[in-house]
Amino acid sequence: MYQWARELFPLCRSLTGEGTRQTLRYLQKMLPGMRLVEVPSGTRAFDWEVPPEWNIRGGTIADAQGRVLVDFADHNLHVVGYSEPVDRWVSREELERHLYSLESQPDAIPYVTSFYERRWGFCLTHRQREALGEGPFHVVIDSTLQPGSLTYGELLIEGESRREVLLSTYVCHPSMANNEISGPVVTAALARWLLSERRQLSYRIVFLPETIGSIVYLSRHAEEMRRRTIAGFVVTCVGDERTYSYLPSRRGDTLADRVARHVLKHHTGHYDAYSFLDRGSDERQYGAVGIDLPVALMMRSKFHTYPEYHTSLDDLSMISAKGLEGAYQAHRRALEVLEHNARWRTTVMCEPQLGRRGLHPTLSTRDGCRRDLRVKAMRNLLAYADGSLDLVGLAEAVELPAWECMPLLTTLEREGLVVRVCEGDGAGEQGREAFGE
Amino acid sequence: MYQWARELFPLCRSLTGEGTRQTLRYLQKMLPGMRLVEVPSGTRAFDWEVPPEWNIRGGTIADAQGRVLVDFADHNLHVVGYSEPVDRWVSREELERHLYSLESQPDAIPYVTSFYERRWGFCLTHRQREALGEGPFHVVIDSTLQPGSLTYGELLIEGESRREVLLSTYVCHPSMANNEISGPVVTAALARWLLSERRQLSYRIVFLPETIGSIVYLSRHAEEMRRRTIAGFVVTCVGDERTYSYLPSRRGDTLADRVARHVLKHHTGHYDAYSFLDRGSDERQYGAVGIDLPVALMMRSKFHTYPEYHTSLDDLSMISAKGLEGAYQAHRRALEVLEHNARWRTTVMCEPQLGRRGLHPTLSTRDGCRRDLRVKAMRNLLAYADGSLDLVGLAEAVELPAWECMPLLTTLEREGLVVRVCEGDGAGEQGREAFGE
Amino acid sequence: MYQWARELFPLCRSLTGEGTRQTLRYLQKMLPGMRLVEVPSGTRAFDWEVPPEWNIRGGTIADAQGRVLVDFADHNLHVVGYSEPVDRWVSREELERHLYSLESQPDAIPYVTSFYERRWGFCLTHRQREALGEGPFHVVIDSTLQPGSLTYGELLIEGESRREVLLSTYVCHPSMANNEISGPVVTAALARWLLSERRQLSYRIVFLPETIGSIVYLSRHAEEMRRRTIAGFVVTCVGDERTYSYLPSRRGDTLADRVARHVLKHHTGHYDAYSFLDRGSDERQYGAVGIDLPVALMMRSKFHTYPEYHTSLDDLSMISAKGLEGAYQAHRRALEVLEHNARWRTTVMCEPQLGRRGLHPTLSTRDGCRRDLRVKAMRNLLAYADGSLDLVGLAEAVELPAWECMPLLTTLEREGLVVRVCEGDGAGEQGREAFGE
Repeated sequence: MYQWARELFPLCRSLTGEGTRQTLRYLQKMLPGMRLVEVPSGTRAFDWEVPPEWNIRGGTIADAQGRVLVDFADHNLHVVGYSEPVDRWVSREELERHLYSLESQPDAIPYVTSFYERRWGFCLTHRQREALGEGPFHVVIDSTLQPGSLTYGELLIEGESRREVLLSTYVCHPSMANNEISGPVVTAALARWLLSERRQLSYRIVFLPETIGSIVYLSRHAEEMRRRTIAGFVVTCVGDERTYSYLPSRRGDTLADRVARHVLKHHTGHYDAYSFLDRGSDERQYGAVGIDLPVALMMRSKFHTYPEYHTSLDDLSMISAKGLEGAYQAHRRALEVLEHNARWRTTVMCEPQLGRRGLHPTLSTRDGCRRDLRVKAMRNLLAYADGSLDLVGLAEAVELPAWECMPLLTTLEREGLVVRVCEGDGAGEQGREAFGE
Repeated sequence: MYQWARELFPLCRSLTGEGTRQTLRYLQKMLPGMRLVEVPSGTRAFDWEVPPEWNIRGGTIADAQGRVLVDFADHNLHVVGYSEPVDRWVSREELERHLYSLESQPDAIPYVTSFYERRWGFCLTHRQREALGEGPFHVVIDSTLQPGSLTYGELLIEGESRREVLLSTYVCHPSMANNEISGPVVTAALARWLLSERRQLSYRIVFLPETIGSIVYLSRHAEEMRRRTIAGFVVTCVGDERTYSYLPSRRGDTLADRVARHVLKHHTGHYDAYSFLDRGSDERQYGAVGIDLPVALMMRSKFHTYPEYHTSLDDLSMISAKGLEGAYQAHRRALEVLEHNARWRTTVMCEPQLGRRGLHPTLSTRDGCRRDLRVKAMRNLLAYADGSLDLVGLAEAVELPAWECMPLLTTLEREGLVVRVCEGDGAGEQGREAFGE
Repeated sequence: MYQWARELFPLCRSLTGEGTRQTLRYLQKMLPGMRLVEVPSGTRAFDWEVPPEWNIRGGTIADAQGRVLVDFADHNLHVVGYSEPVDRWVSREELERHLYSLESQPDAIPYVTSFYERRWGFCLTHRQREALGEGPFHVVIDSTLQPGSLTYGELLIEGESRREVLLSTYVCHPSMANNEISGPVVTAALARWLLSERRQLSYRIVFLPETIGSIVYLSRHAEEMRRRTIAGFVVTCVGDERTYSYLPSRRGDTLADRVARHVLKHHTGHYDAYSFLDRGSDERQYGAVGIDLPVALMMRSKFHTYPEYHTSLDDLSMISAKGLEGAYQAHRRALEVLEHNARWRTTVMCEPQLGRRGLHPTLSTRDGCRRDLRVKAMRNLLAYADGSLDLVGLAEAVELPAWECMPLLTTLEREGLVVRVCEGDGAGEQGREAFGE
């Protein structure tokens, strides 16, 4: 994953344009079945409209001597996203109105965009800004803002059931690592794992520009998604090693939330739990009133909370193979739990006699059973499997990770001691409705 | 308000009698539409009966030399409330059986009453008692206990809706300030504010003697009040500056409770939360089994909890204009919240594009949106306005005072981004029933 | 009770056999109406089968000189429970495979059994084991394992109502005191108290071997018990003075749980609250999926948690008359609460006038009512008795022990101020179903 991140990092992604399209084509190559969808500029989507397509070839600030002081070629954050073309001489005073830097982080180039209002501007480190000189300056932005299209990638994986899980990640940020290139690469790795064998559930995996992309996608698919989705995750900020973060759905108790909290509790010792008030990415749309999809987030360092966020400091040194792997494993475990999230019911009245099945020691000593955690776990699963709890609920009841319960339940099922009541979902009204079952 | 309190303070109020009647007439003058109701002695009211009317002109303890040692003219707490007339010479020993003082507060005259058992008695400071001398004493109480009537004041303000809010305060305590004269004056100020313009809700405002007054009133109006009342407050102990106190309804989760807690949380940093087990005023009747009105209390220093309570030390120095004003504002905010307590619903799918409406910056920088709290608040209101939350619930969800949400919702409503689902009440079964809507 | 414990302590109880039968006959003598039931070996019960009957007359390890090193006559824990007969010479090495001792408690003989797998073995102190010498050894166990029967005792006490309470205790452990002989003697004392007069509820009291006994019993009576049982307690570990412990039902909110927690809170300052995950006795069966009886435990030191548990150190010095009495009183209070667990409703609107009934002081002074806790309690009971709360709920609401509320409610009932709404149970669906009422 780290290698993919390294290769995708330099592309100049934005809401639209060739950088985003190249990123999607790179991912398409490793994900059979993924299709790229082009949505023309001007297309209406709920309260929004697809903006013109933006492409950029270069951008410089030069002084009177022709020395290039700031150059898009050095870092694609140097030009404000969606800058209109410009080519003229400006005074220092006029230039100032088009410059963005961070006094508190003098070596960072900030990330600034103006998607829906025509502007041009440069982002630079505060040190660069202070060293600019008196001017005049020759500013050139070689960009185009023309009718074109917004591009997103969609991979639908059909499983045994029509119930589906959503993975959504975004591909609209230029060269930044934790937010955002970690998201597409972890999502791609999850997609490859999902494609590796036939699954119980169906999966809808989308790579799209943030906000406008998910709004466009929902304007076309919300109905179907509301019927089918039992859980979903926005995959973002999944590359660093600092911490784990959980951001809930608005309701906070959907299957996605329950799975996310269960996985994070057992996958990592401590995680930061946020509120839906702290939302910031496409969960804003998936969780909007009237959309109401059960979508939660399992992140490493959350957007808005780490100092490198939305600056050039969020570079490849911010993320690591280990950081990406940890987030990948957390999501993969969540998907495994969803795949096996049946409701179980004990078939015998009173405790079964595990001893004659070789599942329990036949000698009773004081300290024997307590040491044998596997036996204890099986007895607890039998005691709590009353048909009302799904796998997550059962695992929480017996205070074990769901992935440790799964093989024990399989053993008990083989012995005829437990049965699946139904392929439960735990998502309540919404979930059952989603089944068409 | 403090001036009104000063003028009403000296009157000798009791369950019945001229002191109470004068108090009510004073209030009537400033409250157009308020009517005074006389209920004859002997009238049955649930388990009770209106007692005889008590009036008192004077009361003294004098010694053999004719020196007046204790005089009702000095302080109307000196005579036990509802004392029967007496005029005779008694020994020190006999007098002792009719004296009440507080050894722990030697300068305080305690407040003592005997409403339903014929007695006579004097209350005095412990220092006075110790200085009385050997006797004999000439005790005179020039009072009458005769058939007459109990008097209460009632102000009904009709609004757009038949749903109504109850404000209840009592007028039966002689010269004491926080408990009680603060209650009638704050209630009168609220009534004047309510009368100043046409309101959405109707209001029932009653000034009555505690316990027997509310029981008599409920015996006549409980049916109608149960149908119409969405929330109510007993206004008492609202004059000092020490603290704020909240006393819930028995259920603890009525609209009155939710509004009271919300207002106190944002109106004041800290408040003391009591249990319905700590009740003591007319909430005992409003919250009684079978009456079950949604009534809560927002007090300053709660009855029974401050050392001056029910003594002559609870005088005009105990309360202040600032103390009264704080309580007035808290109640007024509660009424404003009730007036606007609709359920709101976002009208667009996904987030609306606030930028093109001038409600959101068009330039996206890392720290921009986070600084603009107004933008953040609007986005949160849109995200949580799912039609299930009333204004209080919505304000709690977005962690803002309701009175800060109200203008933002008005802005969003004007833009067509939110609508009122119905004039919600949040009071559940009882409330909806109350609407007749 | 301590005297009974002393007499029953030496008997060699097991799942089956004469020791258990003698214990039951001893209890039968003091409990008129108790019957002993014999269940033949081989009888099927759910997933189990009644094992052969085990009887033992002696067991020794002797050395070549004929010196007896370990002797069942010294302590009946010396032979592994259900040991098959043996009589032969063995080497030290072979003997080792049949020895059980505790290195960490060198003076304790551990309690070991092998009910469902044929074995023989000796338990001894670690000091004994270290002093055994080289061998060879002559091992003799004079036992029989033959078709016979499992024996249990059942006492059904019919009350006014068909609703019933279960008391279950076990009689299968050899000479150990807190676990187990405390259980049968406290249960017997409770049964004698229940038999002393006609009761409102019916009682099902069973003395049976742990696990197989309750499974056999449930295989015959579960249907009826599910219909009738409103609450039950497994009586075990009720003899020492160290602490009180509470172990809930799986659901944790049954009437048995609510009563147990209420009693323990008021009966003792602090108690240890466990989870159903910590279960270990017959609550495993009563609370099993499909059985689902509302059964909780009020123990002194809980099984598995004290160092003497399941060793010879759990002897008569571990328990005391005072320890037994404390547990007896806790259970008796629980049964008293269940007997009186009606729902109460106040009959008058608003507060009744307690003064004219002599239940309230007629003189109102500041500190008067607050001192009179009885008056305060009555007023609170009237305020909360809304017909929705059973006695436990009402007592919790007014923050008093149910047994202090009972006489006050009787007084109020005599005055016509409260009525019983129905003989409530608080057990929800299950309980109401149980009434057949």
